[in-house]
Amino acid sequence: MELTSFKSIIDKYETIFFDAFGVLKNHHGLLPGIEQTFDYLEKKGIDYYILTNDASRRPQLLAEYYQGKGLKGLVEERIISSGMLAREYLQLKVDSGTIAYVGTELSAHYLEALGLHTIGMDEVNLKEADDINALVFLDDEGFNWNTDLNKCVNLLRQQNIPAIVCNTDRSYPESYTEVAIGVGALANMVEQVVGKKFIKFGKPDAQIFIFAYEHAIERGGTPDKKKILMVGDTLIMDILGGNKFGLDTALVLTGNTLAKNAEMRINTLGILPTFICDSAVIDA
Amino acid sequence: MELTSFKSIIDKYETIFFDAFGVLKNHHGLLPGIEQTFDYLEKKGIDYYILTNDASRRPQLLAEYYQGKGLKGLVEERIISSGMLAREYLQLKVDSGTIAYVGTELSAHYLEALGLHTIGMDEVNLKEADDINALVFLDDEGFNWNTDLNKCVNLLRQQNIPAIVCNTDRSYPESYTEVAIGVGALANMVEQVVGKKFIKFGKPDAQIFIFAYEHAIERGGTPDKKKILMVGDTLIMDILGGNKFGLDTALVLTGNTLAKNAEMRINTLGILPTFICDSAVIDA
Amino acid sequence: MELTSFKSIIDKYETIFFDAFGVLKNHHGLLPGIEQTFDYLEKKGIDYYILTNDASRRPQLLAEYYQGKGLKGLVEERIISSGMLAREYLQLKVDSGTIAYVGTELSAHYLEALGLHTIGMDEVNLKEADDINALVFLDDEGFNWNTDLNKCVNLLRQQNIPAIVCNTDRSYPESYTEVAIGVGALANMVEQVVGKKFIKFGKPDAQIFIFAYEHAIERGGTPDKKKILMVGDTLIMDILGGNKFGLDTALVLTGNTLAKNAEMRINTLGILPTFICDSAVIDA
Amino acid sequence: MELTSFKSIIDKYETIFFDAFGVLKNHHGLLPGIEQTFDYLEKKGIDYYILTNDASRRPQLLAEYYQGKGLKGLVEERIISSGMLAREYLQLKVDSGTIAYVGTELSAHYLEALGLHTIGMDEVNLKEADDINALVFLDDEGFNWNTDLNKCVNLLRQQNIPAIVCNTDRSYPESYTEVAIGVGALANMVEQVVGKKFIKFGKPDAQIFIFAYEHAIERGGTPDKKKILMVGDTLIMDILGGNKFGLDTALVLTGNTLAKNAEMRINTLGILPTFICDSAVIDA
Repeated sequence: MELTSFKSIIDKYETIFFDAFGVLKNHHGLLPGIEQTFDYLEKKGIDYYILTNDASRRPQLLAEYYQGKGLKGLVEERIISSGMLAREYLQLKVDSGTIAYVGTELSAHYLEALGLHTIGMDEVNLKEADDINALVFLDDEGFNWNTDLNKCVNLLRQQNIPAIVCNTDRSYPESYTEVAIGVGALANMVEQVVGKKFIKFGKPDAQIFIFAYEHAIERGGTPDKKKILMVGDTLIMDILGGNKFGLDTALVLTGNTLAKNAEMRINTLGILPTFICDSAVIDA
Repeated sequence: MELTSFKSIIDKYETIFFDAFGVLKNHHGLLPGIEQTFDYLEKKGIDYYILTNDASRRPQLLAEYYQGKGLKGLVEERIISSGMLAREYLQLKVDSGTIAYVGTELSAHYLEALGLHTIGMDEVNLKEADDINALVFLDDEGFNWNTDLNKCVNLLRQQNIPAIVCNTDRSYPESYTEVAIGVGALANMVEQVVGKKFIKFGKPDAQIFIFAYEHAIERGGTPDKKKILMVGDTLIMDILGGNKFGLDTALVLTGNTLAKNAEMRINTLGILPTFICDSAVIDA
Repeated sequence: MELTSFKSIIDKYETIFFDAFGVLKNHHGLLPGIEQTFDYLEKKGIDYYILTNDASRRPQLLAEYYQGKGLKGLVEERIISSGMLAREYLQLKVDSGTIAYVGTELSAHYLEALGLHTIGMDEVNLKEADDINALVFLDDEGFNWNTDLNKCVNLLRQQNIPAIVCNTDRSYPESYTEVAIGVGALANMVEQVVGKKFIKFGKPDAQIFIFAYEHAIERGGTPDKKKILMVGDTLIMDILGGNKFGLDTALVLTGNTLAKNAEMRINTLGILPTFICDSAVIDA
Repeated sequence: MELTSFKSIIDKYETIFFDAFGVLKNHHGLLPGIEQTFDYLEKKGIDYYILTNDASRRPQLLAEYYQGKGLKGLVEERIISSGMLAREYLQLKVDSGTIAYVGTELSAHYLEALGLHTIGMDEVNLKEADDINALVFLDDEGFNWNTDLNKCVNLLRQQNIPAIVCNTDRSYPESYTEVAIGVGALANMVEQVVGKKFIKFGKPDAQIFIFAYEHAIERGGTPDKKKILMVGDTLIMDILGGNKFGLDTALVLTGNTLAKNAEMRINTLGILPTFICDSAVIDA
């Protein structure tokens, strides 16, 4: 397995897409030195975006996290979340009535800002649910799984409305040793129980890459896919998705794929990054 | 689709296996007149058993339900539950330490009666879990899904112990209009998140049929599979399972498979009952 | 189930995407009267494209079929096939070496026109395969399944190269009564045997919709998704895919979804077309 | 990972079930010294059986292979194959008409010996197929995949008959470096294309363990599962299946599970053998 220095490859690209967790940050916060990477990108005039399966809050709040840690350039416009895709879907396809959701109130505020009317699943009365036109899975937190997931099942059985999953991740890291069940896994369970097809947004599906790609072009970025690099720590989300969209891809070993397993996982899955780098951190 | 009278076929058999829900009972209780079926079986000397995906309580309590409704012959020895298979597994394979479980205390009592030491997932401390030698999914009730399913995931990540699913049903009827998520669906979700292979007991897997078959033979029943009939309302559980085990099968239309859909479902799934009967109720 | 006249809805749109089989043609050839639909679209200045899971030949040849039947406006530029996505992938990601393929020579010619070097799986010698940089599933015809699918398995085991599936359809109609196994099903089988992740192009995946959308905009079409209609006969391919991409969708009953089953299938799958129309044929 | 000597554990058991490939033999033939294992078992009076997913020929021919190599005790009665389960199913459930099959003539002879009438898929005329009452997948060899698998699909579409899979293995080793697609993978593909539920026999399903268990008891073996050991090289077939049936299990490292990967695979899959042994070969 040949390792390449991250610094040695990025000069070739005009736009870089980064996964967030495992690439820029981990349980302790930002990766030490990652600010140098962004300083270098700014200096070289290389454009960059964060692509994240996250619908728990709106991009502005996601950006504030990075800015609060000193990454001043990571403004809202540089964040592309699966929640933004779901929001676009709802704007285009659900123009009236109420949207039932599971997740925190914070995640629902993001939808309400668009003028969509939302109701938490805990407040849904199945006997008076005729005006509910969609069910949205936003976050694993903020609701009672026992009661509200059962209500999701019965709402979808009694009404033929679309179910939208805003984050396909089945789990996410909670601490150095523990993971948490993600809203993607909860939605998959409800989908299997009701036997319907849900509409799902997030990596590795192509739609988030095209969203980021179009967004970058609108802001003056290159339309030449050969000049765009996807950087991620997860073969099946970041690298498979980036490859399929036609981008060059760099696997970093600071997150989900450990150095000791990387070669075996690449061979087993047959997912081939263009480059393998120790880290996205570059020395000043 | 040719319908056959249930009474006209049962005389050919020496042993009959019944599914419970949708065949003998529904949300209102026992099917009106079902006692006549059992009177007839007793009069004719035809042996019978209930095969049920249920691990929520021990067979004695399941039997008491029927007896309390007037089916005096439905004694404990006539109940074969998926919970009994799981219990046999635990007896054979987990001979020491503690068994963590999700489910009600009632469901755990059944395991404790064997001398197995159990602990509810809510009381498990992941930092002091070294003596836990198995995780058992017993029932969807009796625990907090938010906290305890996450604990299941992390227990299985930190310790290499078997996970046993005592009821593979993904959902079950709660009322005439509503269903509830079953422990089978919860276990499937945890299995997908941790990526391990769980050990699962219940129809349509062959093991519950062989358990019933051996149990019936021990009590003097016929070993000739041609003389045993499986009666059920669900093609994919009861009829597929019975067919594969080599039994004749009768689909009844009082439960999960509605008369108006039966032919289409049989053709779509390619699961062929030997007989289709309106109901397992026979006239006196 | 409310039926809408196709003619009554199309005036609202600036661009229309059509599925081919079951919408424009069937086993007998073009649907009688379908030319009137295209005459009307031309007269009204409504743009249109065909979106098809087909990699068996290049778009020019697909277009010639329609032109030969009298649809003179159906020029090559109006055809968007899954094969075009695969070709873009190969251009971007496989810039040297040889591409092994299964399919007809005709399907491979399409790749060779780009300067890619191809070799049929029947001519691959596994002992001298070091220069093979990708395996492409093009068509179910043109090769010996017994020998060549086994060679695919062993090629992917011995070399870590990407496998690309250019048509995800599992089957396709051969005559009024018979279907044929599609290359999508063959590729799925090889994928399961080798345990790797293949790269797959075709409906309902978002990428073909994106490709068509960008292509239409480049040719002067609207970027407003509210002004684009997807017309298809298959809920799970055309309608789910169109919905997810944010388009309005029209289900027609001339192909895969029969009038007598449409309502039941819509309810079972939970896939909701914006409109249901008898046919895409409109009266002059 | 603690290794145990195979000789040190077998004295505790009265019956031993062996997987064949990877345990007793490999591409070069029998494992050198394996005859000493059987000499020892004979001397100690320990009963033994071979459990194999093989329907390509009848048990007598499978036994002759071992006897020809010098294992004189490996008589037909010691062979339990998935083909025997399928044959029992056909005897019980398909008592008239013709059985269509894919596989070699040798594999079909085994069914014909029972008085069942068979026809190779190549000879089936779909226009005169009314007397075909089952479709059986016997072997990956002996037929043209291109034509005959398509005929399987259309036979199952036009007639509602059961499809039986006599060997669930997706692949099998052909040489030291190559594998071949197994009939289990071909059957899975046809099953997905037609959307029906097939009836499948073979490890890790409980039914083959039950069959062997009952067979051993009939021949005087112990009914005490604690006294039976399953020996295999494949975690997901042999060890999972044996564990679920309640048997002690020994993983050997001479086949599918390599010594260098064993611990990682056990942890990843969560399938726990009772013992791990270098080999089933014991020194004299």
